Amino acid sequence: MIDFSRRNSPSSGPLGQRKPLGVVGGMGSLATAKFLELLARNSRAKRDQDHVPFIALSLPSISDRSQAISNGSDAPLLQILERAHWLEKAGCGAIAIPCNTAHLWVSEIKQALSVELINMVEITRQAISASRGREIHNLRSIALGTSASMQHPLYVRPSENGFGKDFIQNLKQIQSDTVKIIDDVKSGNLNDSQTNLMRVIRSARSFDPDLIILSCSELSAISGDLGDDNDIIDPIHFLASACIEWWMAEGRSSPNLMTNRS
Amino acid sequence: MIDFSRRNSPSSGPLGQRKPLGVVGGMGSLATAKFLELLARNSRAKRDQDHVPFIALSLPSISDRSQAISNGSDAPLLQILERAHWLEKAGCGAIAIPCNTAHLWVSEIKQALSVELINMVEITRQAISASRGREIHNLRSIALGTSASMQHPLYVRPSENGFGKDFIQNLKQIQSDTVKIIDDVKSGNLNDSQTNLMRVIRSARSFDPDLIILSCSELSAISGDLGDDNDIIDPIHFLASACIEWWMAEGRSSPNLMTNRS
Repeated sequence: MIDFSRRNSPSSGPLGQRKPLGVVGGMGSLATAKFLELLARNSRAKRDQDHVPFIALSLPSISDRSQAISNGSDAPLLQILERAHWLEKAGCGAIAIPCNTAHLWVSEIKQALSVELINMVEITRQAISASRGREIHNLRSIALGTSASMQHPLYVRPSENGFGKDFIQNLKQIQSDTVKIIDDVKSGNLNDSQTNLMRVIRSARSFDPDLIILSCSELSAISGDLGDDNDIIDPIHFLASACIEWWMAEGRSSPNLMTNRS
Repeated sequence: MIDFSRRNSPSSGPLGQRKPLGVVGGMGSLATAKFLELLARNSRAKRDQDHVPFIALSLPSISDRSQAISNGSDAPLLQILERAHWLEKAGCGAIAIPCNTAHLWVSEIKQALSVELINMVEITRQAISASRGREIHNLRSIALGTSASMQHPLYVRPSENGFGKDFIQNLKQIQSDTVKIIDDVKSGNLNDSQTNLMRVIRSARSFDPDLIILSCSELSAISGDLGDDNDIIDPIHFLASACIEWWMAEGRSSPNLMTNRS
């Protein structure tokens, strides 16, 4: 369970309402839409008015995260912070970033913000431990993601998992196929991307892992019902649930602010 | 072709970038996510950085539009205007509202804004005329939507269409089934909603209309590939395309601002 104790005043959001969720979008744009879809689908709202309020700032000119990581540049961090600060100033009560790779800078982002960063990677790790009764590093896991998140694993380092020599040889192909799918999603070339993702997952499954983690939100954007499979971990689902939980917890802590005032 | 000539300065958006699209969301939340998905899917962007920038303000406490229309209240108009003005002040260069029923107040909204309102109903009418070579009122059309948009038709008045007595008798059932589907989508009760929508569409098709218009964006949120069918008009698709066209046109008119500066 994430700790939402670090709170600002729950009121004084935009238009005198409760502080909404702030979403740093555009990494990429389809993944942002998918996250907002999950936020709506999973909110258990009975009517429009009960859904989680948000401001999504999607200025997608943020430098390529993988390129920056590979060049040792922190240009994306500064651009992500600019956007997160903008949302904070706009009156948001917490920030969510539906991009796994951006979480490589999670400590810096958390430190720079005065409101809660709802940390997708931390929440996903907690959810795995809770459901499996074991920490992620004690499970045989394969993470599929960008080249940056493979170079600097967010969830698990593949070589630690004892899949053996045969796996390490195949991993390169799995990784390059995954990067190709991510590029296809970012460029709207979606026709075969779902089929290609299924092929990569079949290839990963042949090594009988406990978990396959979709550690790039572009994969989540095309994952369909894959997250229902027992061995698939789709972090963006956990992020959406945690954001809904945050919103409900804020309401409970200030019952007179349970409904928006407008 | 919509006229995007009424422009403010294209720069001076948030964080010194080109003015992004402003989206008044939350009517409902799933429809907002669907609109943003279409904006991403149809943008012909080659990479993250080329997608249409936007700020989505989704404070869903806006009063029920259908109830207000039926009570003669304009409470939703004032709340929609508050949000649109907030987006304008935040530096947005145009406003989109992915909710058909909200367009019952389109004149008032247009008049109150200093930036362009990308009018979903107007764009859809234009798209129908362009593709069919006839104005919508010269086509046999059935619009499926909220009780308000049936009471005050946005696109077409069913009795004008000459479907005959049998149709008018069946229309009440089609309407009440549609309202039930919309309520299901708003409350996250999505399991049967797509099947129920298909049943309503089959029923409407039995009267051999030229067009069936999904005149509530909640229907668009669950329409899947229905928009590919020749007789189905899905206005949210036209809104997304018009927003992309607006963004491209703004870039062409200020070539030195074609890429975001950050």
